[in-house]
Amino acid sequence: MKKIKKGFASDNWSGVCPEIMEALTLGNRGHNEAYGELGDPVTAAAIKQFKNHFGEAISVRFVYNGTAANVLGLSQLMRSYHAVVTASTAHLNEDECAAPEKFMGAKILEVETSDGKIKAEQVKPFLSSIGFQHHAQPKVISISQLTEMGTVYSLEEIKQLADFAHDNNMYLHMDGARIANAAITLESDFRSMTTDAGVDVLSFGGTKNGMMFGEAVIFFNPNLAKDFEYLRKQGMQLHSKMRYIAVQFDRYLYEGLWHKNATHANAMAQLLAQHLSAYNQLEITQKVTGNGVFVRMPQELIPIMQHSYFFHIWNEQTHEVRLMCSWDTTKEDIEGFVKVLHEQLS
Amino acid sequence: MKKIKKGFASDNWSGVCPEIMEALTLGNRGHNEAYGELGDPVTAAAIKQFKNHFGEAISVRFVYNGTAANVLGLSQLMRSYHAVVTASTAHLNEDECAAPEKFMGAKILEVETSDGKIKAEQVKPFLSSIGFQHHAQPKVISISQLTEMGTVYSLEEIKQLADFAHDNNMYLHMDGARIANAAITLESDFRSMTTDAGVDVLSFGGTKNGMMFGEAVIFFNPNLAKDFEYLRKQGMQLHSKMRYIAVQFDRYLYEGLWHKNATHANAMAQLLAQHLSAYNQLEITQKVTGNGVFVRMPQELIPIMQHSYFFHIWNEQTHEVRLMCSWDTTKEDIEGFVKVLHEQLS
Amino acid sequence: MKKIKKGFASDNWSGVCPEIMEALTLGNRGHNEAYGELGDPVTAAAIKQFKNHFGEAISVRFVYNGTAANVLGLSQLMRSYHAVVTASTAHLNEDECAAPEKFMGAKILEVETSDGKIKAEQVKPFLSSIGFQHHAQPKVISISQLTEMGTVYSLEEIKQLADFAHDNNMYLHMDGARIANAAITLESDFRSMTTDAGVDVLSFGGTKNGMMFGEAVIFFNPNLAKDFEYLRKQGMQLHSKMRYIAVQFDRYLYEGLWHKNATHANAMAQLLAQHLSAYNQLEITQKVTGNGVFVRMPQELIPIMQHSYFFHIWNEQTHEVRLMCSWDTTKEDIEGFVKVLHEQLS
Amino acid sequence: MKKIKKGFASDNWSGVCPEIMEALTLGNRGHNEAYGELGDPVTAAAIKQFKNHFGEAISVRFVYNGTAANVLGLSQLMRSYHAVVTASTAHLNEDECAAPEKFMGAKILEVETSDGKIKAEQVKPFLSSIGFQHHAQPKVISISQLTEMGTVYSLEEIKQLADFAHDNNMYLHMDGARIANAAITLESDFRSMTTDAGVDVLSFGGTKNGMMFGEAVIFFNPNLAKDFEYLRKQGMQLHSKMRYIAVQFDRYLYEGLWHKNATHANAMAQLLAQHLSAYNQLEITQKVTGNGVFVRMPQELIPIMQHSYFFHIWNEQTHEVRLMCSWDTTKEDIEGFVKVLHEQLS
Repeated sequence: MKKIKKGFASDNWSGVCPEIMEALTLGNRGHNEAYGELGDPVTAAAIKQFKNHFGEAISVRFVYNGTAANVLGLSQLMRSYHAVVTASTAHLNEDECAAPEKFMGAKILEVETSDGKIKAEQVKPFLSSIGFQHHAQPKVISISQLTEMGTVYSLEEIKQLADFAHDNNMYLHMDGARIANAAITLESDFRSMTTDAGVDVLSFGGTKNGMMFGEAVIFFNPNLAKDFEYLRKQGMQLHSKMRYIAVQFDRYLYEGLWHKNATHANAMAQLLAQHLSAYNQLEITQKVTGNGVFVRMPQELIPIMQHSYFFHIWNEQTHEVRLMCSWDTTKEDIEGFVKVLHEQLS
Repeated sequence: MKKIKKGFASDNWSGVCPEIMEALTLGNRGHNEAYGELGDPVTAAAIKQFKNHFGEAISVRFVYNGTAANVLGLSQLMRSYHAVVTASTAHLNEDECAAPEKFMGAKILEVETSDGKIKAEQVKPFLSSIGFQHHAQPKVISISQLTEMGTVYSLEEIKQLADFAHDNNMYLHMDGARIANAAITLESDFRSMTTDAGVDVLSFGGTKNGMMFGEAVIFFNPNLAKDFEYLRKQGMQLHSKMRYIAVQFDRYLYEGLWHKNATHANAMAQLLAQHLSAYNQLEITQKVTGNGVFVRMPQELIPIMQHSYFFHIWNEQTHEVRLMCSWDTTKEDIEGFVKVLHEQLS
Repeated sequence: MKKIKKGFASDNWSGVCPEIMEALTLGNRGHNEAYGELGDPVTAAAIKQFKNHFGEAISVRFVYNGTAANVLGLSQLMRSYHAVVTASTAHLNEDECAAPEKFMGAKILEVETSDGKIKAEQVKPFLSSIGFQHHAQPKVISISQLTEMGTVYSLEEIKQLADFAHDNNMYLHMDGARIANAAITLESDFRSMTTDAGVDVLSFGGTKNGMMFGEAVIFFNPNLAKDFEYLRKQGMQLHSKMRYIAVQFDRYLYEGLWHKNATHANAMAQLLAQHLSAYNQLEITQKVTGNGVFVRMPQELIPIMQHSYFFHIWNEQTHEVRLMCSWDTTKEDIEGFVKVLHEQLS
Repeated sequence: MKKIKKGFASDNWSGVCPEIMEALTLGNRGHNEAYGELGDPVTAAAIKQFKNHFGEAISVRFVYNGTAANVLGLSQLMRSYHAVVTASTAHLNEDECAAPEKFMGAKILEVETSDGKIKAEQVKPFLSSIGFQHHAQPKVISISQLTEMGTVYSLEEIKQLADFAHDNNMYLHMDGARIANAAITLESDFRSMTTDAGVDVLSFGGTKNGMMFGEAVIFFNPNLAKDFEYLRKQGMQLHSKMRYIAVQFDRYLYEGLWHKNATHANAMAQLLAQHLSAYNQLEITQKVTGNGVFVRMPQELIPIMQHSYFFHIWNEQTHEVRLMCSWDTTKEDIEGFVKVLHEQLS
């Protein structure tokens, strides 16, 4: 079988971290009630872990992946004639093959940004549609934390967006596919960034940070979770052997595993950025706050580097590439990459 | 943590069989291309296994679960103004919380059956709708193999339904959540039951037979698979770390693991049925051909038995219960159950 | 241009009654605010007429046709994981080409009836699904008044279904495509049959009783009408020149035009039934309470009669045909039909 | 009843022109087959008129309004994972309350324009999504003729977009809500602008040019019309008394009624623009090619003018208003408007 070389393509090219693998193995004993029903102690334990981190008042439900967490979470906040306002670069808008439109029937209103972060002033113009029957009605603001550009919202920025949303009878949704990396960057716990900042619904992901599969939808007001189990089933997202999602999250949130993995990935990105900044021919285009480095490089260099370490081109026009670090990226990986780079650039 | 007692509730209350767990652990090495893209050797290997079983001409794609395999597979065969004809007891009709209606917008036309198996004659009356613009247009017949009643279609019966469907410009879809158990019952390989019998699309499940998660959609005419990857993504069913679904199927189909597990589960059901048939107070209501036993028991006995071994009541009115065996059901489990039963009935 | 012979095919084969035509002509003066917005006095006048008939507390909105009135009205009562319980013969289930499934994503649960009328006991079995996440959740009972079989619910029967629905946290929806004919049969006003009986949402039709196009959705609790205007626009049902729907309803409800037309159509059906009952070879299969006569006739007679007066075969197996009378059916039409019949049968 | 003053709000504030009203009255005789079925001679006659204008090879079907014509026409060209590229100002994107997203589940990709017209180069960047499973797949380009900014595509521009679409395995859709006005501007017949230019599907509207209700969907390749009747019914757009849509179109296309009405409306817009251009305080912002005039005026003037003649503000920020002329706009209306204006500006 062909061996895939390690690289910087995405944090989902990496495997499952040993602690999660062990938890899966240990959790694989005997029978358990299917579908995460009330009788299932593994699911109950995972939910307890989430409450430890986010507060007792949350409701949390598990689905298979981030697309589903986003779409089903938003579905609880919207009817089909509503709209969600998000950055044009948001995964929700760009990379889910119209899953939100298909499942919700609703409209996505795009905000242009340079760094993937939206501001309340950019949402304001859409408010003029409210009450006009020909326009989809803005109901949710959705932000990504980390953004798809690797940038991070400060606690204050999140709070401002939440206040703006609530002042206008809207909700704030957060896509937290890389929320662990954001927490490390902000030196924040999860709660400050979400519960306390006024987020209404969060997609909490772990797959990019060492898990195998599964995503959590967290409702900060349990009323918003009403009937979610029917929507989840109808959304084809109810796992029969639920314990295998639950046991991963239980371990992920226990004894700081999420923290350890994200700290490492972020540190590797810093190390990589530090190395890259030594070269005049390269330009780092986004502030490196998470586990990704966006860098513009000479066009002819890209295929050469990709030959040794695969990564994705972010923008064909500007020769900008994205280098993602992961829980399993090593100093040696980075030094190896820099070595090849050095041979080309000096 | 509360311990769940083994029972006969469902084959998805059991865990992951050791071989699959080992394959997951062994497969957890290094990096791999995400999303099962062409560069991913693990996904390629699993597809090869499927072709070994079903023939070279198939197209196979992985999704998360059986609901999705059914709904997305059917979506390839239908437009929203089409209808799928199925048994009223079919999972598709009864147990997917209107997922087919939501995702396809299409209609399910129900056929009443006593044993979960439909016959061509029962589909015929729906054909009169063809060409009448006020009626959803029948386009697919969907059967479950095993059925939800534990019964099995013979190769000849499948072939007849396929011929009937094709003669009427329709397709034949098979929900194979328990196809392994059916193969054991029929002493058939997979290919004879599907490819050779004229099935157009198959949902191939393994979770009820020892896997952790993942389901395969098999298209016997590759044209029917056209653009499926977009529909899968839009259907929120594209797993990023695809190798963990693929590696399970690769192992499941290798060296007869599927065969071993299903043989065992079916044998346990036979053993259980044999024991039960000794009691006049019990009535086995469906021919025991797979891994489930449907039995009518005195109403007052049900909660007593459930106290020791949990199982589901199938029909509250008739006091019919369903006892499911699994790859991990042991003779001791059955003897234990029968012992409790015996104390009550003699 | 080919001339179509008058017949008994359907009450929508007839044209527009002279009073409505005159109202359209008179209403066609000058400018008017589009979309039935607040500034449009014609729409306001029509709404006032509805309130005269149904009480001040209603909300009423106009759409194009009965399919839309049913689907959009129900959409206000349901989410996609809900189900509506209705007679298998209901237009909603049989004759809307899966429009409810497409637009709502929800499930229709069918009740078998001999006369098109459902009873609370027939709804009861579906209640066991409530709270079970694998099943669509029953939320609405939908009845047709007149039913598609020409039968009528008494005021008491409607009230019983409404009470049953409300006792079980469900709603009662009424498809009133032929509500005028039902009112004549029951010697009732509209209000007693709906507002006072506990109906939650009504599709109020006039096209089968002399109008050109347009249907009204009436919400008896205005909270249920919330945001309907967005759903209507999204449902492709907002007419720009709304006044031409409004002016028809204004006239239809004024000075008993609806009453006159429906009284006539019902009387013609009675006359027809009276004639038919004289022949042993014919069997009237449903109580004639509205403007339709369902009659079983010798198979060979059907094409002969259709040659002179077109009508629809209701059931190919039983040689049952449906003869619909309309506001424009004359005694001469009926006598002509009976004359041809007599030649064949005596 | 409050009388609405004539103004320049929209061409759908005007009524039905006398010729159409007469045709409706004359067409209101006797019975006719419902639903525009094959036996209905009125619908057949209207279709013949369309073929006279667009060529024998077209398929044409009637729906209720422009939203539906756009959405159902596009539905024939796309699956839910496809995308339609259109101007951000297109009615399809801005003014249909997410009807396309709801009914098709598909994505709208917006192109920014200053004049409502898109160019092939603006579509090109979206082509890079083709084959990438995370992105909705661009499949249709949709243009409005007239655009929502009152501008017009030349025959050559349409042809170029059609060629570009077809070269890239895409379709060209045209929203012809004001196609009659465009034909007058271009001194073109309908056929040159559509059939001969390579348009695949056209929404053909008449309501803004003197009709009461109804819109036609024209397929230039009849294969694209396949099964449209089921989609129409499911889309809640099948009118039972179809003849009343058909008879309007029959008359509209006969003896140049469409031409007369549109010529008049366009001429009135020219006259209005000519008057307005005399004032330094006003700035006409779009080339006046159809029946609308876009003009920037002093902010404080707007409510004063609206008091006498209602019209819509197009852009609150720039004080741009839209003045629409119609088949019934008179020289006196314009002179009256200009008189009030003159009192304010001189």
